[in-house]
Amino acid sequence: MNSSRLSFLSPETIAVVGASKDPTKRGYQAIRQLLLDGFSGNIYPIHPRETEFQGIRAYSTVASVPENIDLALICTPAVTVPGIMKELGDKGVKGAIILAGGFSETGEAGLSLEAEIAEIATEYGIRIVGPNTSGVFNLHARMNIVGMPNVQAGGLGIVSQSGNMALTIATEASMRGGLGFSTYVGVGNQADLGFNDYLAHMGQDPDTKVPVLYVEGFKKGRKFLDVAREVTKEKPVVVYKSGRTLAGQAAAKSHTGALSGSYDMTVDILDQAGLTVARQSNELIPLAEALLLLPPAKSNRIAVLADGGGHATIAADCLSEQGLKLVDIEEATRKKLAGILPSAASLSNPVDVAGGTDANPGVFADCAEILLSDPNVDVLLIVGLFGGYKLRFAESLGPIENETALRLGEILKRYGKPMLLQSLYTPLRPEALEILRNTGVPVHESIEMAVTCVAGLVQYGYTQKRNRSHPPTIANEQPEAARDLVKACRDDNRSALLEFEALELLKIYDIPIADYIVARSQGDLNRAVVKLGSGPLAMKIVSQDILHKTEAGGVKLKLSGRDALNSAYHDIINDAKAYKTGARIEGVLIAPMAKSGVELIIGVIRDPIFGPVLMFGLGGTMVEVMKDVSFRAIPLSRADAEGMLGQIKSSKILEGVRGAPPIDRAAIVELIMKISNLVQAHPEISELDLNPVFAHAVGFTVVDARIILDDE
Amino acid sequence: MNSSRLSFLSPETIAVVGASKDPTKRGYQAIRQLLLDGFSGNIYPIHPRETEFQGIRAYSTVASVPENIDLALICTPAVTVPGIMKELGDKGVKGAIILAGGFSETGEAGLSLEAEIAEIATEYGIRIVGPNTSGVFNLHARMNIVGMPNVQAGGLGIVSQSGNMALTIATEASMRGGLGFSTYVGVGNQADLGFNDYLAHMGQDPDTKVPVLYVEGFKKGRKFLDVAREVTKEKPVVVYKSGRTLAGQAAAKSHTGALSGSYDMTVDILDQAGLTVARQSNELIPLAEALLLLPPAKSNRIAVLADGGGHATIAADCLSEQGLKLVDIEEATRKKLAGILPSAASLSNPVDVAGGTDANPGVFADCAEILLSDPNVDVLLIVGLFGGYKLRFAESLGPIENETALRLGEILKRYGKPMLLQSLYTPLRPEALEILRNTGVPVHESIEMAVTCVAGLVQYGYTQKRNRSHPPTIANEQPEAARDLVKACRDDNRSALLEFEALELLKIYDIPIADYIVARSQGDLNRAVVKLGSGPLAMKIVSQDILHKTEAGGVKLKLSGRDALNSAYHDIINDAKAYKTGARIEGVLIAPMAKSGVELIIGVIRDPIFGPVLMFGLGGTMVEVMKDVSFRAIPLSRADAEGMLGQIKSSKILEGVRGAPPIDRAAIVELIMKISNLVQAHPEISELDLNPVFAHAVGFTVVDARIILDDE
Repeated sequence: MNSSRLSFLSPETIAVVGASKDPTKRGYQAIRQLLLDGFSGNIYPIHPRETEFQGIRAYSTVASVPENIDLALICTPAVTVPGIMKELGDKGVKGAIILAGGFSETGEAGLSLEAEIAEIATEYGIRIVGPNTSGVFNLHARMNIVGMPNVQAGGLGIVSQSGNMALTIATEASMRGGLGFSTYVGVGNQADLGFNDYLAHMGQDPDTKVPVLYVEGFKKGRKFLDVAREVTKEKPVVVYKSGRTLAGQAAAKSHTGALSGSYDMTVDILDQAGLTVARQSNELIPLAEALLLLPPAKSNRIAVLADGGGHATIAADCLSEQGLKLVDIEEATRKKLAGILPSAASLSNPVDVAGGTDANPGVFADCAEILLSDPNVDVLLIVGLFGGYKLRFAESLGPIENETALRLGEILKRYGKPMLLQSLYTPLRPEALEILRNTGVPVHESIEMAVTCVAGLVQYGYTQKRNRSHPPTIANEQPEAARDLVKACRDDNRSALLEFEALELLKIYDIPIADYIVARSQGDLNRAVVKLGSGPLAMKIVSQDILHKTEAGGVKLKLSGRDALNSAYHDIINDAKAYKTGARIEGVLIAPMAKSGVELIIGVIRDPIFGPVLMFGLGGTMVEVMKDVSFRAIPLSRADAEGMLGQIKSSKILEGVRGAPPIDRAAIVELIMKISNLVQAHPEISELDLNPVFAHAVGFTVVDARIILDDE
Repeated sequence: MNSSRLSFLSPETIAVVGASKDPTKRGYQAIRQLLLDGFSGNIYPIHPRETEFQGIRAYSTVASVPENIDLALICTPAVTVPGIMKELGDKGVKGAIILAGGFSETGEAGLSLEAEIAEIATEYGIRIVGPNTSGVFNLHARMNIVGMPNVQAGGLGIVSQSGNMALTIATEASMRGGLGFSTYVGVGNQADLGFNDYLAHMGQDPDTKVPVLYVEGFKKGRKFLDVAREVTKEKPVVVYKSGRTLAGQAAAKSHTGALSGSYDMTVDILDQAGLTVARQSNELIPLAEALLLLPPAKSNRIAVLADGGGHATIAADCLSEQGLKLVDIEEATRKKLAGILPSAASLSNPVDVAGGTDANPGVFADCAEILLSDPNVDVLLIVGLFGGYKLRFAESLGPIENETALRLGEILKRYGKPMLLQSLYTPLRPEALEILRNTGVPVHESIEMAVTCVAGLVQYGYTQKRNRSHPPTIANEQPEAARDLVKACRDDNRSALLEFEALELLKIYDIPIADYIVARSQGDLNRAVVKLGSGPLAMKIVSQDILHKTEAGGVKLKLSGRDALNSAYHDIINDAKAYKTGARIEGVLIAPMAKSGVELIIGVIRDPIFGPVLMFGLGGTMVEVMKDVSFRAIPLSRADAEGMLGQIKSSKILEGVRGAPPIDRAAIVELIMKISNLVQAHPEISELDLNPVFAHAVGFTVVDARIILDDE
């Protein structure tokens, strides 16, 4: 995987095409920052007339530069870019950063200009950052050509599709003292390099500990997922996805030409790939900080330590609303706490010291250590006033708070379990909290944000374990029978499989399908009764020309006995003919009525960005009105499939309500896995729908199946 | 309403019972703060032995104080409080603040101690704040005896059930420069005065512009709602309710009860009463600030002005996720914007200046004015870098930003429409943003929080209008027939009405009920066929001793014709007798099968805190698994009832899905109003359930009704 690294992001030589003497121009600022930071390589300003910029010799053309150029920053307008790119290509430049806007985000003309430069890049083997990018930096290489001042080197790698968001991230990091950056890339329009490439790079970059992404739209979504699944096994990756509503999508399109699909789908499959999804833009840095400083949580068992009932209550609410568990602490732990806290203290979780720290905030560190040494506790969250005791109670408590902060940091390291602190005094930036931050304990102003970070640590701990131990299953090869079936459909010039063909294909992939018969004659009807029993049976028209079977009178249910079958058969055929003259009628599909069960839907679409995605949900109004469904990109791991069942809001129904037995989860998981395999083996399938599937206490019945092939 | 004011919160004389010379004690701090602030009234330290505190003469007993005492601060331990209260009573003191803990929050003994002081208070006419309170202040009266330093006078009134939360609020307000307070009350255990009393006081207090409440639990919830409904017609009130995951799950006897008592219920009825509910604790002050500084929004039509695509996109997402509308701006507005912005600017909403402010941030004010003058725009949200141009672009832009801030403030006043600004530079506190705050424009760091405040302004604008023009309907008197019906049930020693009695009661309140017959004999069966037609009919056992009718074989459906009726009747009676020996059987209720329709549930519970609450939802799994229901306290206004239908997540089903016609909303609203009336007129009804009601395209059918009376 070492080839994923983008070597031009650690350049030894940089050309600035369109160097400038105007301090407000990027062609000036880039050179200035490189000089200020002490960039150790060579800088080559390119300008047709000028001979020098900020004391550095300029060249009139790229060709005239006397050595190889690793990286070129192009500061000139859009129309000049194709010509410059060719010059760069002739010179063998590896990477080009194109700042200019005026490409695909502006419409037709811009789109074709963007296609042109992408083509040139391919032809000459140049990698493009942008166009319409804010630039890049690699602070560990002292290479900052984004013109962002006051950033320090550290472990966060930033990939952002918005310059403003990059500034937001930088400002917030600076407020959280000590958070620094490795590499920044403004992705812009992704004419060539995209999120997948930058993430692969950061996965390999030893200076980047946590990649942080602001995404308006992916271009190679499928590739991105593959990369993310690998990278997140070793490093947490935090992502915020905007363009989640129609209004946001319209805004994103006019900003970077980005296209986005359903937000819920995107969140599900990003999580599946192991990414940590920030639901609000302001969670991006706090989550990244938590994942940078702390180990992932071993489980969702949390202890809260508070010095006030209000904060304890709010923390308990927030934790349980996020599905986290206020764990029962051990009797021995309670006893130890009782030994150092006043009798009014609450010793069950959340622990409230009830004034027990007022005279000596050092008691916090004692309590923290006692709680972290409890084997039931995997995360400790401290909420309340810490850091403000000096201000609130007495000047003399200041040094004790500072010392306590150091002790907390030491305890964090010793126990190796995540510890976070919320203090209402955070915005006042008291010394004790600055010390605490420096020891590696994240400090929050808001309880909600602290809890979001706890949830992020729990989630990453879980997904990392899941994805390390549950690789997605690799598909079977396409069996010959399946190939023949698809070919027959193609030969017949159909893109939709007839229902019995779809059922047949499912059977080839070992999916249990109830017996059925396609009746084309009286004889078939007789055989149906013999084979399927006397009822109740269902009959459905089989015709490539009739899409809406019910509308065409093509569905009859609960038929019992030979006579009912006969008359239904003739009615169906006649009604179909009347409904659509000349309709090609293959016959009538006869199958036993399904046993009742929980109505499920399993569908597959090919998302234009992410490729094949499987959807699972409850049928009927649940899916139609509540949109209560879960998504996973294909291929799935078994853990993914299991996760789909647990994730839907109405999952209680799967466990059995109103006296119904629980459904056969294992069978449904197996079904999902087989559908994942089938779709993997058949890239020509563009849509698949099992709707409904009736899930029973044992097994399931596929009641209707629809499979559509893509255009050849 | 003037009597609602608590005059002791503007005291002319204060006694400090348990005065102290120890600076860490409240009996010291209170006197010190009063002196520091220049409290103009008299202070009377009370101490058995000492004669002077901080230069003020002390008295050994309350009785020996030479003038009336308006307010007493009791700093002594819990056990001493009853004795002191009596002394205060003899002296004619109006209000007592009891700091000590050790009352109802600690268990049995504390509970009875609390009851004792409450009794003394009633006997002597003293009002109690607390016990277990952090204290009170009234900054406009220079009376701060909560010991909270560094608070300034202003328009926010704080009522908090947590000292930590009060500190949080004070700290956050100080960070938002210029936000000050009127009165603070730590409510503590509410032995006497509670949230309802403090809110009523603040409603009348001219110094309080926006009351802000942190609530763990209401005591007189019904009273509180009544007060809130009045106060919020004139002043916005912001509330955060904690303890929401544990709330009210007990005492849920019936199906409806199980879903009630929840946080969701509380939020619904607080909103109904006109309160602004903060969903997260950190939203409390931002919402209060917005409502303090800005007028309520006329509608949900929002314009966004951005200087970067990323922020524009995120703002668009957040706004539409909150149900707010990025309004179409007028052609004339676009033209005006085009005249001052570069061609790359996005002139549709969100407006992105695309660099058009880089050289002159003053253009922001021009754009803001253009947007606010558009009649389609009711709120303006500015997002991005404003305030950071000096830092980001050039020192020389600083004065321009400062001047622009002043202009924005002036524009805000001139147009009288809410304007809010988000800047990523907020945490750096640049001068321009401080100036902007001082002009009355709220400034936010986070887009999400800014949008939450926009939503709060829209919501308050809406609820204020709604509650001003739609008073809840006042109940009819109890008709004689209804009284007789209830009496008959009582006389029969039953708390549950038989089903036909429940239907009869509904009919008395003018609720349309399908014809039915209670058959007690063969002759009744014959009459049923004549009256109800030949079917299909439904039959249900009527017996006070059989609760689970289906289990007892007591329900038969879809019966057609006399024979079917006869045999079903005998089966039901026999099965019932076999099911429960000696069961008193009243007969069998016969009614036509209901036309199919959308299955609804309407229920009423008497919440122990809030009194009668009506619940509306879709029947079946929607209510059971998704808990997709809405709540309103009884009595409802018609607007409340309409709101219930629109609020449920599955409300699309009411509009007709899968080809079904929309339901008759007006009829269901009417039904809800009549149930509200009925329950108001019958305070003895403890539970009521219409489950299911089938809603049709025209009208509805009540399929099952259950009414329970309280214990007499």
